[in-house]
Amino acid sequence: MTAPFDPPAAALRSIVATAIAEDLGVLGDITSIACVGDDETAVARLVSRAEGVIAGCAAVTEVYRQIGPEVAVTWQRTDGDQVEPGDSIGQIAGGLRSILAGERVALNLLSHCSGVASLTRRYVRAAHGAARIRDTRKTLPGLRSLEKAAVRAGGGFNHRDSLSDAVLIKDNHLGGHDVRSAIERARARWPGRIVEVECDDAAQVEHAADARPDLILLDNMSPEEVQAAVAVVGGRVPLEVSGGVDLRSVAAYADAGADYIAVGALTHSAPALDIGLDIDTGR
Amino acid sequence: MTAPFDPPAAALRSIVATAIAEDLGVLGDITSIACVGDDETAVARLVSRAEGVIAGCAAVTEVYRQIGPEVAVTWQRTDGDQVEPGDSIGQIAGGLRSILAGERVALNLLSHCSGVASLTRRYVRAAHGAARIRDTRKTLPGLRSLEKAAVRAGGGFNHRDSLSDAVLIKDNHLGGHDVRSAIERARARWPGRIVEVECDDAAQVEHAADARPDLILLDNMSPEEVQAAVAVVGGRVPLEVSGGVDLRSVAAYADAGADYIAVGALTHSAPALDIGLDIDTGR
Amino acid sequence: MTAPFDPPAAALRSIVATAIAEDLGVLGDITSIACVGDDETAVARLVSRAEGVIAGCAAVTEVYRQIGPEVAVTWQRTDGDQVEPGDSIGQIAGGLRSILAGERVALNLLSHCSGVASLTRRYVRAAHGAARIRDTRKTLPGLRSLEKAAVRAGGGFNHRDSLSDAVLIKDNHLGGHDVRSAIERARARWPGRIVEVECDDAAQVEHAADARPDLILLDNMSPEEVQAAVAVVGGRVPLEVSGGVDLRSVAAYADAGADYIAVGALTHSAPALDIGLDIDTGR
Amino acid sequence: MTAPFDPPAAALRSIVATAIAEDLGVLGDITSIACVGDDETAVARLVSRAEGVIAGCAAVTEVYRQIGPEVAVTWQRTDGDQVEPGDSIGQIAGGLRSILAGERVALNLLSHCSGVASLTRRYVRAAHGAARIRDTRKTLPGLRSLEKAAVRAGGGFNHRDSLSDAVLIKDNHLGGHDVRSAIERARARWPGRIVEVECDDAAQVEHAADARPDLILLDNMSPEEVQAAVAVVGGRVPLEVSGGVDLRSVAAYADAGADYIAVGALTHSAPALDIGLDIDTGR
Amino acid sequence: MTAPFDPPAAALRSIVATAIAEDLGVLGDITSIACVGDDETAVARLVSRAEGVIAGCAAVTEVYRQIGPEVAVTWQRTDGDQVEPGDSIGQIAGGLRSILAGERVALNLLSHCSGVASLTRRYVRAAHGAARIRDTRKTLPGLRSLEKAAVRAGGGFNHRDSLSDAVLIKDNHLGGHDVRSAIERARARWPGRIVEVECDDAAQVEHAADARPDLILLDNMSPEEVQAAVAVVGGRVPLEVSGGVDLRSVAAYADAGADYIAVGALTHSAPALDIGLDIDTGR
Amino acid sequence: MTAPFDPPAAALRSIVATAIAEDLGVLGDITSIACVGDDETAVARLVSRAEGVIAGCAAVTEVYRQIGPEVAVTWQRTDGDQVEPGDSIGQIAGGLRSILAGERVALNLLSHCSGVASLTRRYVRAAHGAARIRDTRKTLPGLRSLEKAAVRAGGGFNHRDSLSDAVLIKDNHLGGHDVRSAIERARARWPGRIVEVECDDAAQVEHAADARPDLILLDNMSPEEVQAAVAVVGGRVPLEVSGGVDLRSVAAYADAGADYIAVGALTHSAPALDIGLDIDTGR
Repeated sequence: MTAPFDPPAAALRSIVATAIAEDLGVLGDITSIACVGDDETAVARLVSRAEGVIAGCAAVTEVYRQIGPEVAVTWQRTDGDQVEPGDSIGQIAGGLRSILAGERVALNLLSHCSGVASLTRRYVRAAHGAARIRDTRKTLPGLRSLEKAAVRAGGGFNHRDSLSDAVLIKDNHLGGHDVRSAIERARARWPGRIVEVECDDAAQVEHAADARPDLILLDNMSPEEVQAAVAVVGGRVPLEVSGGVDLRSVAAYADAGADYIAVGALTHSAPALDIGLDIDTGR
Repeated sequence: MTAPFDPPAAALRSIVATAIAEDLGVLGDITSIACVGDDETAVARLVSRAEGVIAGCAAVTEVYRQIGPEVAVTWQRTDGDQVEPGDSIGQIAGGLRSILAGERVALNLLSHCSGVASLTRRYVRAAHGAARIRDTRKTLPGLRSLEKAAVRAGGGFNHRDSLSDAVLIKDNHLGGHDVRSAIERARARWPGRIVEVECDDAAQVEHAADARPDLILLDNMSPEEVQAAVAVVGGRVPLEVSGGVDLRSVAAYADAGADYIAVGALTHSAPALDIGLDIDTGR
Repeated sequence: MTAPFDPPAAALRSIVATAIAEDLGVLGDITSIACVGDDETAVARLVSRAEGVIAGCAAVTEVYRQIGPEVAVTWQRTDGDQVEPGDSIGQIAGGLRSILAGERVALNLLSHCSGVASLTRRYVRAAHGAARIRDTRKTLPGLRSLEKAAVRAGGGFNHRDSLSDAVLIKDNHLGGHDVRSAIERARARWPGRIVEVECDDAAQVEHAADARPDLILLDNMSPEEVQAAVAVVGGRVPLEVSGGVDLRSVAAYADAGADYIAVGALTHSAPALDIGLDIDTGR
Repeated sequence: MTAPFDPPAAALRSIVATAIAEDLGVLGDITSIACVGDDETAVARLVSRAEGVIAGCAAVTEVYRQIGPEVAVTWQRTDGDQVEPGDSIGQIAGGLRSILAGERVALNLLSHCSGVASLTRRYVRAAHGAARIRDTRKTLPGLRSLEKAAVRAGGGFNHRDSLSDAVLIKDNHLGGHDVRSAIERARARWPGRIVEVECDDAAQVEHAADARPDLILLDNMSPEEVQAAVAVVGGRVPLEVSGGVDLRSVAAYADAGADYIAVGALTHSAPALDIGLDIDTGR
Repeated sequence: MTAPFDPPAAALRSIVATAIAEDLGVLGDITSIACVGDDETAVARLVSRAEGVIAGCAAVTEVYRQIGPEVAVTWQRTDGDQVEPGDSIGQIAGGLRSILAGERVALNLLSHCSGVASLTRRYVRAAHGAARIRDTRKTLPGLRSLEKAAVRAGGGFNHRDSLSDAVLIKDNHLGGHDVRSAIERARARWPGRIVEVECDDAAQVEHAADARPDLILLDNMSPEEVQAAVAVVGGRVPLEVSGGVDLRSVAAYADAGADYIAVGALTHSAPALDIGLDIDTGR
Repeated sequence: MTAPFDPPAAALRSIVATAIAEDLGVLGDITSIACVGDDETAVARLVSRAEGVIAGCAAVTEVYRQIGPEVAVTWQRTDGDQVEPGDSIGQIAGGLRSILAGERVALNLLSHCSGVASLTRRYVRAAHGAARIRDTRKTLPGLRSLEKAAVRAGGGFNHRDSLSDAVLIKDNHLGGHDVRSAIERARARWPGRIVEVECDDAAQVEHAADARPDLILLDNMSPEEVQAAVAVVGGRVPLEVSGGVDLRSVAAYADAGADYIAVGALTHSAPALDIGLDIDTGR
C-alpha cells in the first residue's frame, strides 16, 4: 500500500541546503564550538517517541552529506514503515560536532515528513480500501515535493502537482458559460490533459456528468449527498470528494462510493511525529 | 499582548517567490488560461471559516505584488486579531486570472501563519500570564522567519533564531566536564552572549544554578519537579520549561513558577487556520 | 488558432535576470559608458526582417523593466501575429544607454520565441487542421516555460511539461512485463493521471489499444503504418505520431488519421526569426 | 582545427542543475517510479543518428554526476569528433531509473551543443581556411558559456563574451561625433581593451581605418563590397564581416579577404544534432 | 588565545561558488586553455610574503574542491598560526590548469581572511589581555561569516552577528523615552536576549547603569572618559568601548578598565596579508 | 579624470539583496521592533567623517529601494566627488524603522566603495598623469563589479574583469616553450583578444618585445629596471608595471616611463572611508 519516500533529488538537495543555512546562521553552532572538541566522535540513534509511519529518511541522509561526508547514516527502518515508541529508526555515526550541527535540521525534516505520512496512513486505514486518499495543493511553501512524497509513503496518492498539471474547473471559472462549454474550451486548449470539474450540488453533478470530464470533484457535500451523486453519475465519470472530511467522517465518505477523497489536512495540518536523537558519546 | 507579523522583508520576498514558482509550474494556471478571459475582473474576500488569530497579511500582499501590480489587497483585520467563522479578513480586487493564480499560495501562507498564531494564542491564554510562551528551533525548513513572526503575532516570544544565536549547553556538550566548566568555556569563547543550560533533574539544577548561567532549561520535568527546581534556584537564574508541555498541562507548568515555557508544537504541529477566498466576479 | 505568449511571470522574470547578468558582465556596457551620454534619449523600433510569427513580447517588456523603469515599451503587433519583412513590431523609448544595454538580450529572447512560434505555425498549417501539432520535452535547458508558451502562440499544443506530468510508457519501462500490466501498475500508482503508451509496430498497437491507455504514441512509423494503426485502434484510444516528421511529411501523417503529431524540432531546431532594432537618436 | 568543449565548470554545474529541476518537476519521473524496479540496472549507448560534430560530453557526465553518483559515463568519441549515423558516442551504465531520469536532459544538452559545433564546422569548412569563423552575442539566455564552448569545439572562435568584454562602436554610439573621436573616447576610458568599429559603407571604412581601431566590422556588405574594403584598408586594420552570411555565401566572403566572419546563426539557429539513447536492460 | 577558522560550511560553499563564477567568466581561463596542456601537473606552495596570522585555510580547500576533485591541498600551517615572510603555508598539487584556474580566488580569500586575522592579532596584543577585542557589523557584503571567523582566528571575539541577534539601544531608538523605559520595552519584547545600551556621555552612563542592561557601549569617548565611566558603573554592568580606537590608542582604552573594545577596522579596513603561490611545474 | 560609479544594475541588485538578508537575519531589526513606533519618521544625513572620494551612491539608493519604497534618498554629492570631514553627502528621509534597518548595509557599501575610490585617487594623483593607474583581479569575492566601478570613480582604469577577458602569459604558462610561441598559440586560439606577457627581467622584456604582444607586464621591478625596460622596448609595446608599488614609490614608477601601473591594494587593502549617518527624528 505504501511506497518509498522519493522526491526528486534536486528538490531535496535544495530544501536541505536552505534549512542548513537557516539553522547554522552567521557564526555556526556556537555551543559545540565552545564545548565540544573537534576530534570527539559519537554514535546517535534516531528513536521514535510515538506511534506512526516513517518518511523522509533520504532527507536525513542528505543533511549529513551536506554537513560533512565523514558522517555515516544507516537505517533500521525505511520509509513507509510503521513504528512504535522506542523503535530505532536509524543511526548516525561520526564527529560529534557534525552530528550536533545537523541534528535539528534532520529531525525537523524527518518529523514533518513522518507526520504527513502518519496522518495519511490513518486516513487510508479509515477509508478501508473503499476509496483512495489524495493530497491537495495545500502544501507549505517550498516543501511540496517532500510533502507529496510523504503522502505516497503513507499510502496516499497525489492530486495535481501545480496549477500547470491538470485543469480543474470551479464556479469561478465558469463566468456566464455552462460547464459543458467550459470543458470544451479546456479540452480545446489543453488536449490530452485531465479535465476535472468541481460541483457543489446535485444539479451541477448531473450537468457535469453529461459533459464527461475526466473527473468530478464533489465539494463540501455530506456523505448522503455524495451517495446521491454516485447514483446520478452511474459510473460514467470517476468521483472525488473534497471538503469537510476528517478522520471521523472519512469512512462514511468512502462507503458512499467516491473513488477518491482529497484531504488538505494531510499536508497543512499534520502534527510532527515525535522523533528524538539519542547520542552516545561513549564518555 | 500581541504584535504585528513582521518578518524581514527579504525573507518574505524569497519565500513567496519560491512558493509562486512551485505552484505555477512550467505552463502556469492552465485552467484560467482556458476558461477565464484576460480582461475579466473580480473582487474576492478572504473569509475566516474558523475561530483563531490572524497572522501573515504581509505575505498575501507580497504574493499579489509578485503576481501582478494591478491587483489591490486591502485589509479589514490585521495580524494578531482574533477572528470568528465568517469574518472578513481582507479583500483582493483586480484581474480574475491574477486573483486565481495567487489564490492557493496566498491561502497556504495565510492559513499556516494564522495556524501558528492561533495555537500560540491558546497556549498564551492557558498560561494566563504566569509564564511566557516561547517557540523553539523546531520550525519547517525555509519558513523560520515567518513562523517566528507568527508566534509573536500570537502573543508568544522567540527563543534562539539559529545555532549561531545563543549557547545552549546540553548533556551531549558536557563530555567529562562538569556544567560549571562548560559554562566557563562558553563565556570565554563567546563573551557577551546568553548562556543557557539544560538540566534533566534536581541535582543538575542545583549545580547549574550555582554556576549562574543566564537561563536554565528544565527538560522533560513534571510540574511538581519544576516547582521543586524553582524553590532550589530561588530566583538566582530565570527558568524555562521544555518538553512534555501540551494545552492541558501548560497551566500547571506556568503555576509551578517557571519564567518561560518553550513549546515546539507552536511551529511543528500547528494545524492550518481554515481561511477561504470568496470570489465575486460580478457575473 | 493561436494564443498569447503567457509563460508564468516568475519563470520569465528569472530567465530575463539570468540573461541580463550574463550579457552585462562585470563592467557593464563599456561601449555606451565611453561613447553615449547618460542623458541621451532615443526611440527604437523592433522591426521584423523576415516573415514569421511573433512570440515573446512579454520578455522584451520584462527586459526593460529590469534594465530600468524609465524605458517605455509599446507594441504594434502582439503574440501570435503574422509579420512580414519591414513590419514594426514594437517601440522602445527612453535613455539611449538603457536601450542599448538591453538590446541584445531583448532581441535574443524575442527572436528565439518568435522562431519557435514561426516554425510551429508552419507545421500547424501543413497539418491543415487534420491533426494537432504538439511539442515535446526536447527543450533547451532553463527555457522550457518560454518555449512551450511560444509553441502555443504559434498555434501548437503542449505535451508533458516534465517527467512529473503524465505517465509515458516506453519499451524500456516494460521489463519482462506486457504493456497491459505496465498500464495497470501506472494507474494504480498514479490514479487520475494520463497514461500514454509508446508503440513501435502494429502488434504493439493492437495490444496497447486493448489495454485502453489514455493515449497511444506511434513512434517512428511511416504514414502508411500510422494509417494501419488508426484502423486497428478504431477510435478506442487517441493516437499521437512522433519521430520522423518534418515539414514535408507532416501533411501525410495528418491525413493518415492521427489525432496529434509531436514535433521535437519546434523547440530544439527552430531557427531564430530575424528581428532588428532600428534606433533613432534624433541626432 | 578543433578544441575540446571546455566551459567553466561552475557554469556547467549551474545549467545542469536548472535543467534537471525543470525536467523532474514536483513528483519526479512518475513513469519509472511506477514501472521500473529500483534495483534494475542497464547499459545505454549514446548513438548518433546523423552526421555531425560532437560537443558537450562534459554536460552529460555532469548530468549523471548530479542525478546519482552510481551511474558511470564513459566515452568512445570526444568533443570535436566527426560522427556518422550509427556511431557510438558514449555509454551510460547504472541504475535504470537513474539513466531514465537523466536521459532527456542529457540528450537535450548534448544535441544542442553538438548542433552548434556541427553548424560551426560546416561554416569553417566552407571558409576553407581563408577566414576565421566567429560567433556573436546572439546566444540563448543562460547558455552562452556552453554555446561558445561548442563553437570552439566546432573549430570556430569566440567574439565578445559580453558587453563588458570589448568596445564595439556602432552608428548608434556616434551621436554627432565622428568615428575618430569615438575611438579616442573609448581608448581613453578603457585603455588596454580591444576597440572595434562597425562600418556600413566604404566611406565609413576609409574614415575608420585612418583612426586605427583594433578591428573593423563590415556590416551587411556584399562580398564585392568587402573586397573593396579590404583594398581600402590595405592591411592596416584586421577586418571582420558580419550580416548576411550563410553557408552558400561564406566562401565568397572568405575569398574577399576578410580576416574574420561573424555568424549569429551558429548559436541562434543551429538545429539539434539527432542523438539517441539505446538502452539495453538485459532483459 | 586563538581558534580555528570555522565559518558554517554552507556559507563557505556559497561564497566560494560565487567567487569562482565571477573569476572564470563566460569563457574560463583562456590563457591556460591556450598555453597549458590539459595533462600538465604541478606542485604549488602557498608562501607568506609578509608577517601576519593565517586564517581561511578551509576556503582554499573549498576552492579546489569546487574547481576539481583531483587537486590535493595540504597544510603546513593552520588557522591562527603566526607566519613570517617566506614561510610555507600549504601545498596544492594536481593539474596545472586547475591550479591556475583557482589561484586568484584562493589567494583573494586567504589573503583577506589572513589580513583580518592579522589586524585582529595586533589589536589583541596591544590590549595586552586587559580587555577583549570584538568585531562589529561593519563587514563586507556577503562575507560576514568568513570575516567573523577570521576575527576569532586572530584572537578576537564576535559582537552581534546581525540585527536579529541582540538589542542595542542608541539615541535614535529612544524617542522621547528615557533609557530605562527603552530597556524595559526591549526586555518585554525580547525576553532572554542581551540588551546593550549605547551611551555618549557620563550622564547617560549613570542613567543606563541604574537601569541594568546586560552591557553598556561607551561611544566615542576618550580613555579618560572611559576611566570615569568605569568608576561610575562600579562593576554593575560590563562596559564596551567603541569609536575612535586605533592601534595607538587601544592600550590606553584597555587600561582604562573597559571589558570589551569593539573595532570596526578589523573587518572594514584590514589590508590583505601578502601571500603568493609559487608554482613548480617540474619543467 | 573621474567617472560615475556605474556597475551593472543586476550585479548591484544581487549584492544588496545578499547584504540585507545577511544583516536582518531571521527576526529582523529587533531593537527597532521593540523601541521605535512603526509610524515614526526621520530625516538622516550621510556625512563624511574624513577626507576622501565618494563612490557607491547607487548602492545606497538600491538598499533603500529594497528595504521599502517609501524611503526617499537624495544626493548632495555624487560619485567621484572629493569630500572633507563634515560634508553632507546625501539625505535619507522616511520611516525611522526603515532607515535604521538599512543603515549598516548602506554605510558598509558606501564606505567600502568610497574607500576604494579614495585610495585610487591618491595613487592617481601621485602618478601625476605620467601613467595610468589600473586595478587587478585581487578583489573581494562577489564584489568585483562594485570595486571595479569604484576604481573608475576614483580616476583609475580597469584591468581584466575575469580570466575570460584577456590573455596574460606568465612564466607558469610557458612550459618548455619560449614566449614567442606562447603568444602565437594564444593569438591562434583567441584571435582578436588582448595578449599581455609578464616579464621578470630585462632579458625577458627584450624577447617579449620582439614578439609584439599587446602589452608587457613588468613584474616586481625597481623603477630603474622599469626605466631600462622602457628604453629596450622603445615604444614598440605599451608597458604595465605591477608588484611592489605603493604610494611612496608610485611617482618614481610613473616617471620611469610605464604606461600603466597596476595596484592590487586599490581593492584588497583599501581602508573604508569613514562615513556616518546623522539621524534627526525631530523629537
